[in-house]
Amino acid sequence: MFDFTIALQANSKTPLYEQLYQAIADQIRKGNLKYPDLLPSKRALEEMMKVSHSTIETAYSLLSAEGYIESIPRVGYRVNRRIPMPFTVLSMAKPGMDRIRSVSGSKTQEPKEENADRYLSFSTGDVDTSLFPYSSWARIYKEVVYQNPDLLQRGEAVGDLHLRKTLAAFLNQYRGVVCGPQQIIVGSGAEYLLGLLIQLFDEDITIGLEDPGYPAVRRILTNYGRFYLSLDMDQKGLKEEQLYQKKIDLVYVTPSHQFPMGTTMPAERRSRILSWAEKCGGYIIEDDYDSEFRYRSRPLKALQGLDKAGRVIYMGTFSRSLAPSIRVAFMVLPQELMKRYQQKFGKQSCTVSRFEQQVLAEFIDRGLYVRHLRRCTNLYKKKEARLIEDLTAIKGSFVSGQGAGLHFLLHLPSVSREGLIRAAQTYRLQLHFLDEYAEKAQMPYPILVIGFGGLSFEQMSQNAQALTKAVETAQEGQTLRSQ
Amino acid sequence: MFDFTIALQANSKTPLYEQLYQAIADQIRKGNLKYPDLLPSKRALEEMMKVSHSTIETAYSLLSAEGYIESIPRVGYRVNRRIPMPFTVLSMAKPGMDRIRSVSGSKTQEPKEENADRYLSFSTGDVDTSLFPYSSWARIYKEVVYQNPDLLQRGEAVGDLHLRKTLAAFLNQYRGVVCGPQQIIVGSGAEYLLGLLIQLFDEDITIGLEDPGYPAVRRILTNYGRFYLSLDMDQKGLKEEQLYQKKIDLVYVTPSHQFPMGTTMPAERRSRILSWAEKCGGYIIEDDYDSEFRYRSRPLKALQGLDKAGRVIYMGTFSRSLAPSIRVAFMVLPQELMKRYQQKFGKQSCTVSRFEQQVLAEFIDRGLYVRHLRRCTNLYKKKEARLIEDLTAIKGSFVSGQGAGLHFLLHLPSVSREGLIRAAQTYRLQLHFLDEYAEKAQMPYPILVIGFGGLSFEQMSQNAQALTKAVETAQEGQTLRSQ
Repeated sequence: MFDFTIALQANSKTPLYEQLYQAIADQIRKGNLKYPDLLPSKRALEEMMKVSHSTIETAYSLLSAEGYIESIPRVGYRVNRRIPMPFTVLSMAKPGMDRIRSVSGSKTQEPKEENADRYLSFSTGDVDTSLFPYSSWARIYKEVVYQNPDLLQRGEAVGDLHLRKTLAAFLNQYRGVVCGPQQIIVGSGAEYLLGLLIQLFDEDITIGLEDPGYPAVRRILTNYGRFYLSLDMDQKGLKEEQLYQKKIDLVYVTPSHQFPMGTTMPAERRSRILSWAEKCGGYIIEDDYDSEFRYRSRPLKALQGLDKAGRVIYMGTFSRSLAPSIRVAFMVLPQELMKRYQQKFGKQSCTVSRFEQQVLAEFIDRGLYVRHLRRCTNLYKKKEARLIEDLTAIKGSFVSGQGAGLHFLLHLPSVSREGLIRAAQTYRLQLHFLDEYAEKAQMPYPILVIGFGGLSFEQMSQNAQALTKAVETAQEGQTLRSQ
Repeated sequence: MFDFTIALQANSKTPLYEQLYQAIADQIRKGNLKYPDLLPSKRALEEMMKVSHSTIETAYSLLSAEGYIESIPRVGYRVNRRIPMPFTVLSMAKPGMDRIRSVSGSKTQEPKEENADRYLSFSTGDVDTSLFPYSSWARIYKEVVYQNPDLLQRGEAVGDLHLRKTLAAFLNQYRGVVCGPQQIIVGSGAEYLLGLLIQLFDEDITIGLEDPGYPAVRRILTNYGRFYLSLDMDQKGLKEEQLYQKKIDLVYVTPSHQFPMGTTMPAERRSRILSWAEKCGGYIIEDDYDSEFRYRSRPLKALQGLDKAGRVIYMGTFSRSLAPSIRVAFMVLPQELMKRYQQKFGKQSCTVSRFEQQVLAEFIDRGLYVRHLRRCTNLYKKKEARLIEDLTAIKGSFVSGQGAGLHFLLHLPSVSREGLIRAAQTYRLQLHFLDEYAEKAQMPYPILVIGFGGLSFEQMSQNAQALTKAVETAQEGQTLRSQ
């Protein structure tokens, strides 16, 4: 039964909606309210509690986002059958469980990762922050703030020259990118830069995307009202004949480590795609999002470095190599596009704090970034190996796309997708299926996208055990039904 | 004569284009090359120097942006009559001359401020950074980095809850803004946020802008292909009847301190504009860009706080109150627009580094921001008073729009605009005329927009002297001609 005697304090620092949310969540956790109880209507609650409609609206939508309640059309809000684990249980999952966030944190994830905080998950979006160079980063920040009062004034719109010079040199040395600092644009995140980039092209161009691919890219294009086609891939990456057949003007690729397939585009395919761009005047967006991490082979040179005709836009980010919260990404534009950029956005202020631009530049200049990458690569290599080993417990499964980056694919043995999802839920494990990243591409059997960047070794084996059990449970269910 | 024996070093850390730029600038500064000498054609230089076309292109465009040379259509590049002052002379202008930037810095300014580095200027874009709280900022940053490893993970898309709570409380206390943290979106700069905001509205809405007004707002709307109308103003601000007559859907206003007029919208006009929005379902963007600084009167409550119907979008920034390089701005959306925002951009990562978000939140929470504002207000108040006094030397002039913010208007006595520009140039003084900020609005006589935020007291009197002399020179010229 709903307890209307909740005491809300108008003078508290905690907003009313949050007090209401907490009080109801508390009633649900204590079992006073349970499935299939209905919550009072918003209007009733408004009358009884004397709070505003929007307070209730917000509290209910938080409860709903957090998985406590669900909206039943034309009925109202009902307590869920499975409610989220209370905080106390979650915090036992430490150490390394650094992904527990504040109440409203989970609202902002990609849909697949919704409520991921409350579940075990092989999320692809997190990185290991245990190696973050706290002390050198904070020390350099302090130096920069003290030594350079000029940095408080507005900087260059495309990013500070110091950082752009450093990036040009670094990218040349480590990725074979050939560019001058005047071709680089620094911005707060690859998504932001991609949004600017597509505005440099006519509205009616045809954009080709890898399928499966990054959902964020589709989302951004849709937001800008742009038209895209999903392109087929094989083991070598995007099949280039479609670029001709479908009259693509701009194609987005992840040649170093395809997201989410994990494949690396071999040199021969690269040169075919480049020659398409040169012949047809197409442009290629090369997103080198996690090229920093390779565990088995030397990385191939970036497409950009092979491009003699100025057809490649190279994009990179520090979200994975440093931390997702440090919002520094960059793109390298061919001269022709840089002119368009300057015309359209030349006066738009850079979105990255100059302090952090300079800290990053110094961090790279002093060799600390390369050292940091080396440490991270060692750690991720060990993690990947361990997780692959842990997953061998799943009989008949195999992995692909490993050896680089922070995720790989797990091909599952014969098991129904629905049965697996149901079984995984009982182990509080959230799964990311490859087909969630696909628009048209069909998978012959369930394939999981397994991210490990943000997981500790303990979490990895916990997750692997849960997955193993879930697969077994699902298979038993199938056997039982078929008997 | 152009000296082709320039020695460029391929192995140097300095890129070739910069070496070339420096060498040519040097020839010009030494007078070996001077007006009206022509530079060799790009092709000739390419052949002689054995460098790439793009190296030469870049060097020439730098020289051109810096004011050394100018492009004469179908002729080539010619050395300018007036060349920029060499660095050595500029650096004599210290102390406080903190606006000397690296060579390519000046390319990224608003057009009016181009080459401002080389000139004296009453720029409106700079702030006084001498009071920046270096030590507390760096100390808090260090604390935040060390104490909160969770901050390395991806944060909430709309900005960290901590910062949004702090902002909601601060805005309520100091600006009368009424909102919860769930209505706030944090982003890296007001321009960035404005770009997102307008995408929440249909493409065919009619947007009304103050005229004169912010050039950046027009630029952003144009970039997004949006249609706007320039609206007339009087001493009280925007004349509200036009909102009805021109069927405006969304209007952008700066009621606290109109940019660039400097007027404050009185309460009565505010309520008329609000009642338009309520009656017609219009939306109001209230840009409160420099409301922190008032020298004579208490600030009026923000429009947002008076709005009962959810029609006001409130925008603010820390660019002026802290530093332009700290890219933190925010907007407060009515619930209805927040829903649209969540649908369209809910998954778009926040563009501000979480470290800096937390530093700012702590900085405000600990009362350091209010203390900083108090200090800045005292300093700016003194600066404004001094500059107005210095400018009384210009006979027949008067100021308006003073008493708040970092700029005011200077109404000049009878003098021709062209004569004044010419005279000002001989004193190396760059002027910003009010009509440069206008689309349709006509000025009966020359009015200057006088920014003082980034000027030291010495620079202010230097600028005021130069302006006084320029006005006198221009008036003498007129007298001579009319004799």
